[in-house]
Amino acid sequence: MAMQLVIGDKNYSSWSLRAALAVDLSGAACDEVLVRLYQPDSRAHLLRHSPTGKVPVLITEQGPVWDSLAIAEYLAESYPEAQLWPAERQARALARSVCAEMHSGFIALRSQLPMDLARDQALTELPDDAQADIDRICAIWAGCRERFAAKGNYLFGPASIADAFYAPVAARLRSYHVALPTAAAAYVETIYRWPAFQRWYQAALQEVKR
Amino acid sequence: MAMQLVIGDKNYSSWSLRAALAVDLSGAACDEVLVRLYQPDSRAHLLRHSPTGKVPVLITEQGPVWDSLAIAEYLAESYPEAQLWPAERQARALARSVCAEMHSGFIALRSQLPMDLARDQALTELPDDAQADIDRICAIWAGCRERFAAKGNYLFGPASIADAFYAPVAARLRSYHVALPTAAAAYVETIYRWPAFQRWYQAALQEVKR
Repeated sequence: MAMQLVIGDKNYSSWSLRAALAVDLSGAACDEVLVRLYQPDSRAHLLRHSPTGKVPVLITEQGPVWDSLAIAEYLAESYPEAQLWPAERQARALARSVCAEMHSGFIALRSQLPMDLARDQALTELPDDAQADIDRICAIWAGCRERFAAKGNYLFGPASIADAFYAPVAARLRSYHVALPTAAAAYVETIYRWPAFQRWYQAALQEVKR
Repeated sequence: MAMQLVIGDKNYSSWSLRAALAVDLSGAACDEVLVRLYQPDSRAHLLRHSPTGKVPVLITEQGPVWDSLAIAEYLAESYPEAQLWPAERQARALARSVCAEMHSGFIALRSQLPMDLARDQALTELPDDAQADIDRICAIWAGCRERFAAKGNYLFGPASIADAFYAPVAARLRSYHVALPTAAAAYVETIYRWPAFQRWYQAALQEVKR
């Protein structure tokens, strides 16, 4: 039986996008179950899949695995040949550091520039705390890409969980028209050319047209 | 060269406590570097250790590893014989799920009942959203302890990263005098009897007396 990934609206659910990109990297057979969020019965519906009532949840044969980061670690462990984390130990530790930093932080960016893939408009004013988050993120991107440039265009060379985690940020920076240093703008372009991201993005655009 | 764990005030820094408990579980040789938080120069001081300017940071021979969860994964990988995660695959996936849930969530509990180990006083009123977080946490604890009871008193039998992550919550529930179901109260007692937690707790009490 294929696994199932329970996700929210593709246009809005950034944590679902992270998990879906990790699933794509793993190459695992996995069906998508989309639960529309912001509906009166969304939470009741989600509680049938997961004890947290939140997306994403990966339904495996042995039970549910929830939260994007736990899902990513589960996939990395289950599909080692797909190298979802960098193979070299210190690079892997750095990749986990920047993913955990994303997972627990950047609250100003997340609350003031929520993911909305179909958006194509700047904020009237970008608050200082959100700009500080963006500056730190651009520093992470520039540092990683410079260090691993010989291996590819993603943060650690080839696409990894770190890119799955930062793809929704790249999307925010483009959809909110945030002015970026050259290195960061190049990474945003890399994300938009990532086939797995493009598929999700196009589906999100269709979703909001309905 | 021994690793160094850069931590904040023991009485207040819950994320430092999580990393310190994971280090203790690993058995690794590691020196503690304490940076007092809430001082005018705290951030400048921390930026010398870590690009995030936050605690905890683990200084390894190959570079800094930051954020409690990335530190925990690094230690689990580096000291496999210490079994920082449960050995069985599905138990490990569940342990990572509940840790990631803690790492990214329970915002009401975290903001309204900040860790203060020396505290011994209830809140005048426990807000509903904090109570909802507590109810979910008690359900996690009861579920895990029932499932792994044959192996020990901690969440997954023997102490693991999951206990490192929930120990600061156990401490909050006791120091704020939160009324608890029997199973949750028993787990709080288990945490307070954990030698590594007790050492940190006693040091925190000394710290606030100074």
